[in-house]
Amino acid sequence: MTEGFARLHVCITCRAGLPLESGAVPMGAGLHAALTTLLAETAAPVELRTVECLATCARGCTAVISMPGKWSYLLGGLTPDHAPDLLTYARSYVASTTGTIMPSRRPESLKDMILARFPAHDPSLRQAAE
Amino acid sequence: MTEGFARLHVCITCRAGLPLESGAVPMGAGLHAALTTLLAETAAPVELRTVECLATCARGCTAVISMPGKWSYLLGGLTPDHAPDLLTYARSYVASTTGTIMPSRRPESLKDMILARFPAHDPSLRQAAE
Repeated sequence: MTEGFARLHVCITCRAGLPLESGAVPMGAGLHAALTTLLAETAAPVELRTVECLATCARGCTAVISMPGKWSYLLGGLTPDHAPDLLTYARSYVASTTGTIMPSRRPESLKDMILARFPAHDPSLRQAAE
Repeated sequence: MTEGFARLHVCITCRAGLPLESGAVPMGAGLHAALTTLLAETAAPVELRTVECLATCARGCTAVISMPGKWSYLLGGLTPDHAPDLLTYARSYVASTTGTIMPSRRPESLKDMILARFPAHDPSLRQAAE
């Protein structure tokens, strides 16, 4: 089990592939607002961040969870109603060794919501051309 | 313009959603082999890595390009034939400031192949619970 904070980037411009009426709040911003409200009420090891576009617009709303040394995961098909389950998932993610949470250990609403994963950041990358 | 190396992680287990006959080489491994051959013949600012599963199996073959301080990009729908264009794309990625290469500046075969992007790694993440 590890400790620390997971970073959760929520795309606040996402309209989940739907048209947006003038002045309406994008669903991604609604998800971010729901998470902000929950995090003010509930202790959770999450640093909430905003991002503008994760290039997955047709499968939004989207969020990325990441933590040093672990796989980053992209979740899609999210709505503001997923906020409580996202925090539950984030707690499991923080407690995990690699960041991988099998579907059977995810909240029911997130079982099919993983769209992709990215390898852990590795600082050993060569920095200069040889 | 920046210098250095981009890291290119290729999923070598990807079968691009197709059945795999016993003993056959997964298409992802074929893509990796094609890139390895090309990189032995051509100078390119790429560190080639293997990865087993990027959780995007239905949209494979897949690869992730990343570099410190830049957006990471996930590409899908790849075949071994994309290897030369992937190296062209990688050169543009290394030369870019943020990692974003607009479709009009990508090789034609990669214009529609971006599946997602992940925010740059940020080392300022809080490490311990408060």
